[in-house]
Amino acid sequence: MERLKITALAGGVGAAKFLRGLIKTVPQEDVTIIGNVGDDLELYGLHICPDLDTVMYSLAGMVCRKRGWGLEDDTFNCLSMLSRYGLETWFKLGDKDLATHVYRTYLLKSGLRLSRVTSELCRRLGLRVKILPVTDNRLRTMIVTEEGTLSFQEYFVKKMCEPKVLEVFFDGADEAEPAPGVLESIMNADVIIICPSNPILSIQPILAVKGVREALQRSDKPVVAITPIIAGKAVKGPTVKIMRELGYAASALTVAEFYRDFLEIFVLDIRDRGLKSVIESLGLKVSLHDTLMRTPEDEIRLAKEVLNATLNPSNP
Amino acid sequence: MERLKITALAGGVGAAKFLRGLIKTVPQEDVTIIGNVGDDLELYGLHICPDLDTVMYSLAGMVCRKRGWGLEDDTFNCLSMLSRYGLETWFKLGDKDLATHVYRTYLLKSGLRLSRVTSELCRRLGLRVKILPVTDNRLRTMIVTEEGTLSFQEYFVKKMCEPKVLEVFFDGADEAEPAPGVLESIMNADVIIICPSNPILSIQPILAVKGVREALQRSDKPVVAITPIIAGKAVKGPTVKIMRELGYAASALTVAEFYRDFLEIFVLDIRDRGLKSVIESLGLKVSLHDTLMRTPEDEIRLAKEVLNATLNPSNP
Repeated sequence: MERLKITALAGGVGAAKFLRGLIKTVPQEDVTIIGNVGDDLELYGLHICPDLDTVMYSLAGMVCRKRGWGLEDDTFNCLSMLSRYGLETWFKLGDKDLATHVYRTYLLKSGLRLSRVTSELCRRLGLRVKILPVTDNRLRTMIVTEEGTLSFQEYFVKKMCEPKVLEVFFDGADEAEPAPGVLESIMNADVIIICPSNPILSIQPILAVKGVREALQRSDKPVVAITPIIAGKAVKGPTVKIMRELGYAASALTVAEFYRDFLEIFVLDIRDRGLKSVIESLGLKVSLHDTLMRTPEDEIRLAKEVLNATLNPSNP
Repeated sequence: MERLKITALAGGVGAAKFLRGLIKTVPQEDVTIIGNVGDDLELYGLHICPDLDTVMYSLAGMVCRKRGWGLEDDTFNCLSMLSRYGLETWFKLGDKDLATHVYRTYLLKSGLRLSRVTSELCRRLGLRVKILPVTDNRLRTMIVTEEGTLSFQEYFVKKMCEPKVLEVFFDGADEAEPAPGVLESIMNADVIIICPSNPILSIQPILAVKGVREALQRSDKPVVAITPIIAGKAVKGPTVKIMRELGYAASALTVAEFYRDFLEIFVLDIRDRGLKSVIESLGLKVSLHDTLMRTPEDEIRLAKEVLNATLNPSNP
């Protein structure tokens, strides 16, 4: 295969699995990942980037495979002591994981921007893939629920996605500038991949940053999205529940509709082949694959199939 | 025994052992500890107070008995990850210990002064004793050595006290104001105790703060110091080495001389009884005790003996 510049928009766990397959398929150096920061949070004065870290840990081979996030073989002793000090400890910070947040916060306070900090963390973990936060500015996914307006992590972790969602908005999106390299990586990419992430909570906050959606619309290179929904169910997380509560059909079709203004190819799961023609009627090419990633082999297979389908759209 | 207000000047491990005995002898509420902050450091943006923490952890029954500092049953996983990020990790931060520094830094950044923060940490750990940093301002014990000028922890931990000491000074001492309650606790005390700590590195930085030495001199209540040197050797740490390098005799006599302007009673170790008369010639009362604290029982016995000797100086 010729060398291709690949840019991927990514949320957390689902994206990380696909990307882990991707960097075993193509050289890491050729991949730029634009990551979500809408789920970032400050806890005890530490700046935490759960989605960026999930991707980083996964690609560095350090993620806890069982949970899909955090570090393998981590302990939670600092957290138990923070609890002894009377602090809220619903966000499960491992001891090793904490080092990332301590170092990140230290670098941010010293004046570096998040994109530079992320690049430094990745370099230290031996990654050659480029992970870019979509913006260096503050952008927060806010969930308006029947129990009030919650930050993403409050909704997701503290409240375990239980409150009914009324609305989602992205605090700070209007002022957020794309981080250096973000728009360039879209404009210069040979292939652009929307990872199998929650379109509302993970990809929307990326698209909400000035110029990102427009850059995708203007690109004349293939933009391909992998469905995060299989047979009306999300592989992980509250995607389906939120879609329903916001009045959308819980279906891969809804995902395709979210992206139709810039998408060329939609990777639909084979279990959803019945949706192929309706998605094609949106003007998209549809490629059918087994998108469920249970094993490292699944991740690699799916990455290869997606690249192949994108570069040879006539052979689905 | 009648209730007495006791104020103690304290360094780290040696002081903590004595104080642990003291609070098993008198009600915690009656004890105010003025702690050294000259060995404080900032690491990875975290504000660390090793001496204050050693005292706090010891009195809360949480200190690692074997090391004398840090927390019992702690792990060092965050530190190993910080090392993976390429950071210096000569200062041995445990995972549980880290919670203290994270929370302290968080409270300091939110605008609280160190004395308030310390009081909050103590309260959360269930302590009723009052631990006061001698100052809320920045004060740093600096060690001028043949290898350059080092902060206390660089000298003590990183360089393992190896470089020859030429001079010790207290950066910031001229501007440092005593923390709220420090001078009052000396003026209102019925007994003032100088704990068995390094006089140069642990007690001097306390005495260097504006008004502290003067308050001790003005007090008409007994001021008693317990020797940190037994038979020409420090129980722990580099006291003797530093004394020699700075041109002092490595002897309990030197310690007594340091404090003679405000001291009434010097607690000398029985192994040094030969020094009794020369120390008495400084105008001090000398009380002979077994000052070596190997067991919790030793700590309590010494605390009782010191209080008894101070209140009944005629019965040594």
